[in-house]
Amino acid sequence: MFEIRYSDLAGRIGRLRTKHGTVETPAFLPVVHPVRQEVSIDELRKVGFDMLITNAYITLKEYGEDARDVHDILNFQKPIMTDSGGYQVLVYGSVDVDHKTMARFQAKIGSDVAVPLDKPTGFGLPRSKAEQYVELTLKAAEDTIRMSKEEGRDEGDGTSTIWAAPVQGGEHLDLVEYSSRRLLEMGYEFFALGSPTELMEAYEFYTLARMILASRRVIPLSKPMHLFGAGHPLTIPLAVALGCDTFDSASYILYAKDGRYILPNGTISIDELEYLPCVCPVCSSISVRELKEMSKEERIAKIALHNLYTIKREVDCVKQAIVEGRLWEYVVQRSLSHPKLAEANQALIESAEYLEQCTPIFKDRALFLSLPIDQYRPELTRFRRLVCSNIKSDKSTLVLLMEPEERPFYTSNKYRMIHDAINAIQEGSSNYINSKIEDGIQIAYYSPFLGVVPEEVSDVYPASHIVSVRSVEYDDYPTMFDSIIHFIRSKGFKNVLVEVDGSSMQVMEGIKDKLQDVKIEYCLNVEDIITVIKSRRYYDCK
Amino acid sequence: MFEIRYSDLAGRIGRLRTKHGTVETPAFLPVVHPVRQEVSIDELRKVGFDMLITNAYITLKEYGEDARDVHDILNFQKPIMTDSGGYQVLVYGSVDVDHKTMARFQAKIGSDVAVPLDKPTGFGLPRSKAEQYVELTLKAAEDTIRMSKEEGRDEGDGTSTIWAAPVQGGEHLDLVEYSSRRLLEMGYEFFALGSPTELMEAYEFYTLARMILASRRVIPLSKPMHLFGAGHPLTIPLAVALGCDTFDSASYILYAKDGRYILPNGTISIDELEYLPCVCPVCSSISVRELKEMSKEERIAKIALHNLYTIKREVDCVKQAIVEGRLWEYVVQRSLSHPKLAEANQALIESAEYLEQCTPIFKDRALFLSLPIDQYRPELTRFRRLVCSNIKSDKSTLVLLMEPEERPFYTSNKYRMIHDAINAIQEGSSNYINSKIEDGIQIAYYSPFLGVVPEEVSDVYPASHIVSVRSVEYDDYPTMFDSIIHFIRSKGFKNVLVEVDGSSMQVMEGIKDKLQDVKIEYCLNVEDIITVIKSRRYYDCK
Repeated sequence: MFEIRYSDLAGRIGRLRTKHGTVETPAFLPVVHPVRQEVSIDELRKVGFDMLITNAYITLKEYGEDARDVHDILNFQKPIMTDSGGYQVLVYGSVDVDHKTMARFQAKIGSDVAVPLDKPTGFGLPRSKAEQYVELTLKAAEDTIRMSKEEGRDEGDGTSTIWAAPVQGGEHLDLVEYSSRRLLEMGYEFFALGSPTELMEAYEFYTLARMILASRRVIPLSKPMHLFGAGHPLTIPLAVALGCDTFDSASYILYAKDGRYILPNGTISIDELEYLPCVCPVCSSISVRELKEMSKEERIAKIALHNLYTIKREVDCVKQAIVEGRLWEYVVQRSLSHPKLAEANQALIESAEYLEQCTPIFKDRALFLSLPIDQYRPELTRFRRLVCSNIKSDKSTLVLLMEPEERPFYTSNKYRMIHDAINAIQEGSSNYINSKIEDGIQIAYYSPFLGVVPEEVSDVYPASHIVSVRSVEYDDYPTMFDSIIHFIRSKGFKNVLVEVDGSSMQVMEGIKDKLQDVKIEYCLNVEDIITVIKSRRYYDCK
Repeated sequence: MFEIRYSDLAGRIGRLRTKHGTVETPAFLPVVHPVRQEVSIDELRKVGFDMLITNAYITLKEYGEDARDVHDILNFQKPIMTDSGGYQVLVYGSVDVDHKTMARFQAKIGSDVAVPLDKPTGFGLPRSKAEQYVELTLKAAEDTIRMSKEEGRDEGDGTSTIWAAPVQGGEHLDLVEYSSRRLLEMGYEFFALGSPTELMEAYEFYTLARMILASRRVIPLSKPMHLFGAGHPLTIPLAVALGCDTFDSASYILYAKDGRYILPNGTISIDELEYLPCVCPVCSSISVRELKEMSKEERIAKIALHNLYTIKREVDCVKQAIVEGRLWEYVVQRSLSHPKLAEANQALIESAEYLEQCTPIFKDRALFLSLPIDQYRPELTRFRRLVCSNIKSDKSTLVLLMEPEERPFYTSNKYRMIHDAINAIQEGSSNYINSKIEDGIQIAYYSPFLGVVPEEVSDVYPASHIVSVRSVEYDDYPTMFDSIIHFIRSKGFKNVLVEVDGSSMQVMEGIKDKLQDVKIEYCLNVEDIITVIKSRRYYDCK
């Protein structure tokens, strides 16, 4: 039912196979009204949307139990997801049908992806109430999947309705986790995380991120996940990076009715627009003045279409970033749209191990490293772990240089100078012929983003495949600090000659403090290091 | 000739009046070839470009001294800038005409903005050579403006050619400054900064930024500045923010011929595109596969047009950001496109005072503060200076709280608690009736982005108009450190009760170190502070 083509972080480009064909994910599903749809289905198709979502509850109310196939109702023969009325439950407290009726109805109208009638927790619900809603939702989900199995419809073979498990719990993360686990046990293959709309309206992006993670950590990445109501370019990159595959929203039309123009960084009232910072077919054919002066109805149609193009573009940007392996860079850059989105980056740091799973081991493209948060990229975390666990050293002395600009390290001037000096000492002193001086000295450099890079692995990906800012505050790189401490301690170095400058001195003082049994000496340049090596003749093996 | 409508940082939305009408800046001028133009002028007009640039030297070579008006040659009756052959000089070393001929020719063909024939320094020229080129350029510029005056053509009245002063010097910033000063003295009203192309190709954005600043600091912001060869969305936001008004480039077509597709964050070979992350009229009408499979000629035309739309969009995004007063946010966000662009942000920090000039005193919109660099925003620098210089305090005790979430400060719970406690003490102790306890205590809070915010100015813009990330490393905010030190020292406080937590403790230790004659006490919360106030009865006036 779901096949993954490319991945980066926990973001995937996948193919979702449904009764009405295959859809590539990440995919945005515009919400369409089964009766009063304002942007025509044809236009949606033209913008490039291959899957829609509509409301099965409204369809039932409007067309009755004998409704035709939803594809005929909408005149759209591609995949259609149906929501079950959970949104109405959230808004009105309850609906006048039960979950079994909704399950039968959605199957009957030929929904490609259907959702058991759930009881959304929303945001801000007391825990006991949230628990109760979660149990009601789980009961509905259990009945629905049983019915679906009894009726001989099996999931995932591409010929029957795919049932999407409604994950509830809201900001009560343990409930989200519990829901996810229970739904997984019930045998669901597709998951739909509910209730984020209010979180997004409150700009609680960090909570949203933790909610996604709470569910996604339970549900294997091989199974797709829908995120309800998330249709703003602001949230799509992060949500994809954390493992969401499909999204739906009616914001394109709701905002349009409000005169709100969606932009990658947020939404703006058209009254505040002096320019149209967009080149979509709508915006490149009219001026901002024309837009403001047209009739309200016409304006709504134009803005809605523009909004859809903006969402479409965002999804394509994310997909291209996944293919290029630069989803991290894209998410972090886009997170600067709003301080509360920037705060949500904390979720990336906290989920490093999870994000590693789907991040390719090798990438064609250099990693761009601009901010301290970039030290937590999965590729770098993985590299530091490799250095920790795989490098053996029986040497007693470590020469720890500052990061050279040349890559790999062993092509750098400073590496050669030290290497040659060691060779020269060795050749000039036949006394030491049986204990090669080289054997006694480990050469490495320290990098804010990579941590310790020993010469042996300095050409291993990604050590030589990074482009990073040159001036940094070493203080902002605790992973480097830990990496140096761990490297010195675990390999048992007795003497460390470290190249420092004014900016790295303070961090090295901290390292000295932690490693009081190691003799750590500062040198201001390579010449100093060579002088010390020559004078002390560090050649002893352990 | 040039009128400024909106400004933010050193970026301006201006109106440039020329013989062939008014152009709004910032403006990108596509380079067109006077004979072999591949994207039709009609298409350029349709994308939305209102001004073009062409090469007067090539025009002279192709059409001879009797060439028609350049507007007729190009069939474009809007403003046209002409370059003089400086680019050919840079590439071939020299051209076979002199600067006087080129000056007469450009005036004759009716150029709206013309450039004296210069001798570009490019990038990487030894200083002595660069000096020589600068002098040659200045000589040409002097002769040209004299000729233009002698012939009764005066500049800036909108009826004659505007002469753009060619600023050379390359990375030799003192030469750039010297050139600018000399050209300003000659009476030029429009300036054109040369030679950045090679810098941009080497991704030396920081040097580019310093070059712009070296010139712009000499030339009043009321006079417009062109930046030669800068047509990539990557550099436009920063260049505008530093004070450049017009740009030109042929990259749209050159890249297209190379199969390179311009995106806001960089350029990518179409072979690496799996999606078209763009919704311009070109990209929304074809698929990436169709693009790859079409004939080479057709593909070049499509990519060139897409490239133009991408540049057009970038300029409109920058303009809208200026209107909204969020150019800083836009530039910083876009700088994450490449680590070398992120490095160039250093130029923003270094030019704080210069950037203040055109930054509005008040803005409608809250400032979004996400990264440590944001502490250097002109609005915040200005605020900290206001606090330094304008706040008088004759009190001996400072209560310095952590930043509350509520704004303004005096509506916060913690402010009220302290305020009420002071009142209660005062009322309960008639002894102190003539020396109100309130008079003895100054209340303020410290904010990573704002520095010290005393109660009196806590509702002054922008103190209550910021949205900032909640968790920060105080270490990354040296401006806060300095602001606290300066506030305590300059107002002469003897006692400071400061609210700290685990994250701010270290910074406060640093402050204690610097202010050893002040009694600084830590409190972990407001209750502690009140207890101390009650027990010590800080009521003494100075």
